[in-house]
This record gives sequence, C-alpha cells and structure tokens, in this order.
Amino acid sequence: MRVFVAQLNPTVGDMEGNTQKIISALEHAREKRADVVVFSELVLCGYPPEDLLLHPAFVDAQAQYLERVVKASQGLFAVVGTVRRNPSAGEKSIFNSAAAIQDGRLLGFVDKRLLPTYDVFDERRYFEPGKTSKVWEYQGQRIGITVCEDIWQHAGLVGFTNYACDPVLDLVAQKPDVVLNLSASPYHFDKPSMRVKVCASTSRTLHCPVILCCQVGGNDQLVFDGYSLVVDQEGRLRQVAKGFEEDEMVVELGALPAPCHFKYDAIHDLYHALVLGVRDYMHKLGLKKGCLGLSGGIDSALVACIAVNALGKENVLAVSMPSMYSSEGSRTDAELLVENLGVELLNLPIHSTYGALMETLAPALQGQTPDVTEENLQARIRGTLLMALSNKLGHIVLSTGNKSEMAMGYCTLYGDMCGGLGVIADVTKAQVYALARYVNRQREIIPASTISKAPSAELRPNQKDTDSLPPYDIVDEVLRAYVEDFHSPEEIASFYKIPLDLATDLVRRIHRAEYKRRQAAPSIRVSKQAFSAGRRFPIVQKWK
Amino acid sequence: MRVFVAQLNPTVGDMEGNTQKIISALEHAREKRADVVVFSELVLCGYPPEDLLLHPAFVDAQAQYLERVVKASQGLFAVVGTVRRNPSAGEKSIFNSAAAIQDGRLLGFVDKRLLPTYDVFDERRYFEPGKTSKVWEYQGQRIGITVCEDIWQHAGLVGFTNYACDPVLDLVAQKPDVVLNLSASPYHFDKPSMRVKVCASTSRTLHCPVILCCQVGGNDQLVFDGYSLVVDQEGRLRQVAKGFEEDEMVVELGALPAPCHFKYDAIHDLYHALVLGVRDYMHKLGLKKGCLGLSGGIDSALVACIAVNALGKENVLAVSMPSMYSSEGSRTDAELLVENLGVELLNLPIHSTYGALMETLAPALQGQTPDVTEENLQARIRGTLLMALSNKLGHIVLSTGNKSEMAMGYCTLYGDMCGGLGVIADVTKAQVYALARYVNRQREIIPASTISKAPSAELRPNQKDTDSLPPYDIVDEVLRAYVEDFHSPEEIASFYKIPLDLATDLVRRIHRAEYKRRQAAPSIRVSKQAFSAGRRFPIVQKWK
Repeated sequence: MRVFVAQLNPTVGDMEGNTQKIISALEHAREKRADVVVFSELVLCGYPPEDLLLHPAFVDAQAQYLERVVKASQGLFAVVGTVRRNPSAGEKSIFNSAAAIQDGRLLGFVDKRLLPTYDVFDERRYFEPGKTSKVWEYQGQRIGITVCEDIWQHAGLVGFTNYACDPVLDLVAQKPDVVLNLSASPYHFDKPSMRVKVCASTSRTLHCPVILCCQVGGNDQLVFDGYSLVVDQEGRLRQVAKGFEEDEMVVELGALPAPCHFKYDAIHDLYHALVLGVRDYMHKLGLKKGCLGLSGGIDSALVACIAVNALGKENVLAVSMPSMYSSEGSRTDAELLVENLGVELLNLPIHSTYGALMETLAPALQGQTPDVTEENLQARIRGTLLMALSNKLGHIVLSTGNKSEMAMGYCTLYGDMCGGLGVIADVTKAQVYALARYVNRQREIIPASTISKAPSAELRPNQKDTDSLPPYDIVDEVLRAYVEDFHSPEEIASFYKIPLDLATDLVRRIHRAEYKRRQAAPSIRVSKQAFSAGRRFPIVQKWK
Repeated sequence: MRVFVAQLNPTVGDMEGNTQKIISALEHAREKRADVVVFSELVLCGYPPEDLLLHPAFVDAQAQYLERVVKASQGLFAVVGTVRRNPSAGEKSIFNSAAAIQDGRLLGFVDKRLLPTYDVFDERRYFEPGKTSKVWEYQGQRIGITVCEDIWQHAGLVGFTNYACDPVLDLVAQKPDVVLNLSASPYHFDKPSMRVKVCASTSRTLHCPVILCCQVGGNDQLVFDGYSLVVDQEGRLRQVAKGFEEDEMVVELGALPAPCHFKYDAIHDLYHALVLGVRDYMHKLGLKKGCLGLSGGIDSALVACIAVNALGKENVLAVSMPSMYSSEGSRTDAELLVENLGVELLNLPIHSTYGALMETLAPALQGQTPDVTEENLQARIRGTLLMALSNKLGHIVLSTGNKSEMAMGYCTLYGDMCGGLGVIADVTKAQVYALARYVNRQREIIPASTISKAPSAELRPNQKDTDSLPPYDIVDEVLRAYVEDFHSPEEIASFYKIPLDLATDLVRRIHRAEYKRRQAAPSIRVSKQAFSAGRRFPIVQKWK
C-alpha cells in the first residue's frame, strides 16, 4: 500500500484556496499511484482558526467545501482534517475531525479526542472531545486514524495536562496495520525532534508504522515547520519530509527505506522558521514590501537579513535615522550591511524633529532634568518616520526588538516597538548572536564589528545596554527559567548560583514590562513559551 | 440563621492584602452576630489570575494563606473561594474551589463543576472540573455550596456551551435549606439583571433561597460590578448589595425583607463601570495621575469626565495639541470643559514638529500626493507629546478612542491609540452620546456644542467622520450583529434592511483593522463581546 503524505501550507479561513490545494494533491497522489492520502489537521480551514469557529457560517462552509474534496477523491482513500458539527448534545457544538473519504464517498469522521487547552492551544474553547478511536479498512489494510494530540500523551510529552483517556491504547484491540496522524504542531526551538519520539512511542505500542502529516507555513504568530515523517513498527525513523516548505512524500508501506536519522540543526531551523514566519505573514496578507530601522546594531542587522530572505532584497527598505548620539561605527556598519545585502538605504536624521519636540515641550517640562523621556523621544521619532514611510510607500514596518529586551522592558513603546510584525521578539539575545554567526557562515554579510561591539541603544552619550541591565546571559537564564519553566526566584537563584535579590529583581522587571508587551507588534513564536501567543498574564497584579 | 455576604474587591495576586480583607470581614461578621459568611469566587487570589496559576509557587501560597483564614474563623461557618491542588490524577492539577471552614477548622472543599471556556473565560486551561455537588450542615441548616457558572446553565443562560451535568439538579436530592453561590461574574452592559434570573431559576428548582456573593472591582480589563443578591424560595428578589463598590450585606434567612425590584439604570451603570475600571487599573498599579489629549470632541470630553470621577480633578491633566486644522470651536469647547471640570489644561501646538517631520521626510516622499500619511503624522506627534509628558511627569495616558472607531480602524496606531488604558474602547459611538447626556444630567459639564457638532478628527480641512465612514448608527448595528452576535453579512443586511454590499464592506473593515486593535492599549470591557478581552481573532486570514 502506498500512502501519499500531503504536507500543505493552508491559509486560515481561505477555504477556496485550501480546497484547491487539497484537490491538486489528490491528483498528484493518483499520478504517483498512491492508494491512501493523508492531509494535516484542519487543512480545510487552516490552523488555528481561532474565533472564526464561533461564526456558524464559517463552520457550515466547511461541509460544503468538503463535498468538493469528496467528489475529487476517485480511486483513493483520503483523510482530510476539517471542522464538523457535533450531531449530539455535547458541551460544544463542533468537533476537530478527520474525514475519511473513499472513491467519491464520505465514509465518516474520526473526532480528535485529546484537546490541548494550554500554551497556544484553546481547543476546549471550541471543540467537543471525540469519544472513540477508529480504524478503517481499505485494500485489506487496517488504517488507524488519530489527530495530533491524540498520540502525544502516550509518549508522556504533554504539558500541564493529564488526559483521562489514551487513544493509542484504545487502538490496541483494533490491531491497526498503520496509524495516520493529522497534525498542526507549531514549531518551537527543538520541537521537531520531539515528534519522532511521539510517533515511536505509538508505533512500539501498536506494533505498526506511524505516518505523521504536518501542516507547514506561518499563520499569524505561529510557524508550522512541516517535517512530516514515518516511523516503522519498531519506532525507527524511516522517512522525513522537508522542513519549512510544502512537500509531498510517498510512503511504500511494504518497502520503507532504511532507518535514518533526523538531521536537525537547531539554529538553521530557527532561522528558517523566522524567514517563513515573515514571508507567510506578509504574503498571506497580500503584502510584499517591508522596511526597518537600521541602527548599526546586531538586532536590526539580523532582521534585515531575515527580511531579505523572506521578501527578496528588492522588497526591503532599510532606514538609517541617526541622532546626535549615533556613533560613526554604527553608521558605517549599517552602510556595509546594506551593501552586502543589496538593499536600498534611506537616511533620515532625527535632529530637527527632536529639536522641535523639545521646544514644544519646554514650557511643560521646565526645570526637569533629562531622563528616559529624552531617550524615548528619539525612539518615537524614528517610529513615526518609519510609519510615515509605511503609510506612503506601503512597506510594512518590521520591528527589531529581541526577547531579552522585551522581557526587561528595555524598549520604547510606540518607538522601536512600532511595527506590523516583531520578527525576533521571541529570540533571546544569545540566539541573536548565534543567528548572526549562522548568517555569516559562508561569507561576512553582517559586519564583524556589528557582532563584536558591546550592545548599545545609542540614546545618550556612550550608553551601553549593561548600564541598565545585567549581562544578557543572566537575563536569558532567568527569562528561560521563569517564563518558560515557571521556576520561582528562589529556585532560579539556587540553580544558577546568582544572588536571590538579582533573580527577584529580574522577575519583577519581567512583570513590570507586561504593559509594554501587551501593545507590542504581533511576533513570530519560536520558543516553548513566547511572551505573545500562549501567555496570558495580567498587567494589574501584585504577586511579584 | 444570619448570613454575612462579603462583597470584596480583591487584587489579583495580592494574597496578603486579600487575606487581610477576608479576615477583617470575618470580624465584621462576628460583630453583626452572623452565623455564616460567604465570600466571592477565588477571593484569596483575585479573579482572573490567568497564567499566574501555572506557577506552582502561586498555587502553594494559597494553601498557606487559607490557613490564616481558617484560624480567623472562630464562631463562624465560612465559605472562601480559593485554588486548591487536585489530589487525584486528573486532566488538570488544580481546582477552582470553595473552602468550607468552621470554627477554626477546614471542613473540606466544593470544587467548581462547570468551567466556562468561552468569551473572557479560560477555566479549562487551568482547572479540573469538580465531580460532585455538596451540602454542609451547620446549626441544623443544610447549606448548598456552588461556584458561579455551576448555577448558570440551569437558567439556560450559558453561551456556546451545553455542559453534560447540572449541579443544581444534583442538589435536589440533598434538600438544601439555602444555596450559596460564590461568583466572579464580570460586568457587561445589561448583565446585572441576568443574575437575578439565574438565582431565581435555582431557587425555584430547589425550593430554597439563593445567596449570590459577587466580586467587585476592576482587574485588568474586566470590571466586576458587585450587586450581590438574595432571592427567596420562589425566586423573588429580596436583597441587593451595592453596585461598583465593596459592601457587606447581612441576610436574616428567617426574616427576609419584602420582595423588591432590581433598580437598574443601564447608562448609569455603564458610566460607573468605566469609572471603577479606570480607578482600579490605576490604583492597583500604584498610579495616581492620568493625562489625555483633549480635542474638543465628544470622546475625549467624556474620557476627561470619567477620569475626574475616577482619579480626582487634581490628578487629571488635559492637553490641547492644536494643529492648522483645529477649529476655533474645538479649542473653546476644550477650554470650557476643563473650566467646568476644574482640571489643568496644557497647550502644546504641533505645527513646528509637523514641519520638521515633513522636511525630514521630503527627500523620501518626493512627488507623492498628500493622503492619510499626513493625517497619521499629526496623530503620532500628539501621541509622542503625551508620552513625553507621561514619562517626565508620571501621568498615565488615557486613550480616548471609542469602539465604533476601533471597529472601523478609524484611529491611528501609535497616535491617538497611544495610552496605558483605553477608557471607552468598548463603548459604541451611540453609547458615548448617551454617557455624555448622563454626565450633563444635572448641569452642563460637557459643552452642548461638543455634543451637537458633527464628529470630526480635524486632520484635514473641513473633515467629517462621515467622509470616511457610514453614519455611526449603521456602523454600530453591524458591529453589534457581527461581533457580538456572530451573524453573517447576509443576515445583517436582511435584518437591518441595508444593502448587502455595505454590510459586507463593514465586516471586511472590521477584519482589516484587526492588526491595529492587536496593538491597542488594554481597554475596559463593558460589552457582551469586546474587541480586547474575550475575542481571539487571527490577523492573517482570508475568510472575509
């Protein structure tokens, strides 16, 4: 039996476009003489549809588009992710389902049983859990069908949750010959290799191969990395589809290729996740061009490289906005970078606007001493200039702040935080350096001096980030331990051997900056726990 | 039996402060010779705690604070809302519980069974549902204990959900003499009167009085209105606590006062919800002073009035920032308003900064014709000036955009959208007018000309809102029907008798502005469906 794995990049809500992709994949499957075709979770509407699911018209439309897919399934057994109405009285009125289709007929549905309601997932908000696990017979083979989370708990890899049932165990008595899993499993740093473990755990329990079909592409803040895969009945990896692009994979069940290793380079993948995140955010919105402020520092340099890879150099506009505090080195670094990238550079000095604002404010601020106000003014003039270019020329502003800064609130609301998309807002400072080295792996694109100099916002004379912050390696440790792993300051101080006062102060700073992050540009989520998608934190709270 | 209802205003995460409030209420209850004391849902940690619940230290702390409450309960039977660990293996590791306490001993817990996971509620993200409904006996009386949602489904007033069990019916066999309900039920327009129906439905089924204890106060974007209440065994309202402030109510079960009506003025309540929302947002963050841009229009005039009521006139700074397009009428209206309110007015013209920005941008924008860019520049200069005042003087910027504008995207990101709190961002334009008339009910505070003139952003000569938008009454109708009630454009066109093209266009505009709203200041939620809290909508989607 030949299984065709359709790793597609659906757009949320684009039922017409997604249906065309699905029908086209069915044609390819026939061309490849496949017997079975598997699609990803909710491929018909794209994942995650969020509150579109609350619109009855949105749910009803899926049944109509599914009919078109059913009609196009001649000669095949196909499994398609779709929303369907719950025909019984249940807590919720819809299921997250896999439609089983054969030869132009809809055979029925398998409803997702384990509904993740943690992190970026809100499935209990919308869906009723499925009640049974099912196997369909086709060409004498017993095909077990599962949807994403259904096989995760079995591998012990689910967070914050311990479901009452185990769909994998429930399949044991049904003796499947192969298990298909329809997935929409968002990328985060180091996650792709987890999926091999998940599938291996299922295959060892059920003594059959497992084929995972993953969604690929960016939808809002989430990036889906693809990497659909096949493990054999002993849990050994046999085939992997491409990462970060659409792919089609034919699996000959009786003749799997030799066991292989999952070739995984975490920084390479992180880079490509960001590129795909930018590209899909823009292109799915029908936008082509991006602009960004280029300070000469490492953050904006990295974002410029990602933007060029995502949008093409002809669609990226870099803007240098020097002030009285901009160093000569920063200017030449910025110029060198745009030369290396071949992008256009605009030069818009901020002195005169700064002067006009200070004069306007003078009567109100008489007798006050300079403080962060003057620094923020510079950042906000830059934000205003970028937004004016964006309004007039149609370039979307790409925001360049990193996660470590966002954690500490070391960023200016309505200033450097302006933008349609926060490209590296979920990337720590240490990862920024690693990504810059990755960009330069073959030749120097980001100037070496950009990478080697001490980070500075250049908003006052001789400013360094370390004037206001502890070294970034400590910031990053506390950030990871507190935000990603929910450890207490006491645990963090003891584990990392830093003073308790420092750990507590950094945690307080993380909380104090919540109000800023709430107004940040949407950002591409690439870590286990971003500040944006998947974290719901009160601004007004007195816990820490 | 005398029941003391402690309608408190807890702060999320402030376990120390909340515990002191609880212990102080226990003392008052003894002074009033009460037998039983009932608190609101999760009163110990404040509602909603959101992802603080994922921090083990946060959960553990509640058990410790609960011990202090238990020790302080001499001579009383008390029911206190708290988080507790799930002692069994369950899908989630904590319960949303009511601790039953008697005379210095912890008797046990009643766990909330119906966990709302829709709208602003995410309870399945955190909590395991309770399995049984319970009655405790005290002084020969059988006291049924329920937590908030537990009694809502019985009245048929739950949205998007149809729970599998009914805790009210499960209490029938246990024959309670009275039912207590611990609530944290956020205000929205017209909601308080719904709670009377909810309690009446339970009391009629169980043939006993129901006492509802509600949280009061603002926490982040939610306002809790209080109005704790008592219905008798026939569902007639007998007692109501104050709205929008802390209150203590003694209920003599054997001698309830005569049946009464719920005195409810929707616009009065809306106004007070906004005032409380502003006051608690600021004061719980330890902030006193607010500032706002005063344009002479009705939106900023209303926000100024709300701010004065919430913070005191000495803590409100109004800022006039005239441009070449500001009308004389707007200036005199603004001056008259600040005189009526007794607040300080600063005058910061934006001409010179606008000139400097246009000059800086000239080389980049050569040959382009004026468009929305120039309008946004003016709004962004104003935002920048307000933020500079905020940075230097410590006033939090109060954002003045209304819901109808936010729906249409008729607002400038990083311009008039700047602010720490969006005061009227969930108030429609029609409600803004009604609130302005409410403010003026005794004497003219908001100048009559502010109310009577046609709305204008004054960002170009003779501009009117209707140049860019359909009349606000149509905008508001579509907004309500689409966003609050999930109707399709076809249904809306037919129901309101407007052209389908217009309905579709307005729905598209609502979706297109999603990216702006995502970066809006947090706002006070006062409608059934706000754009902020309780709505999760993709930016990148092609449904409409």
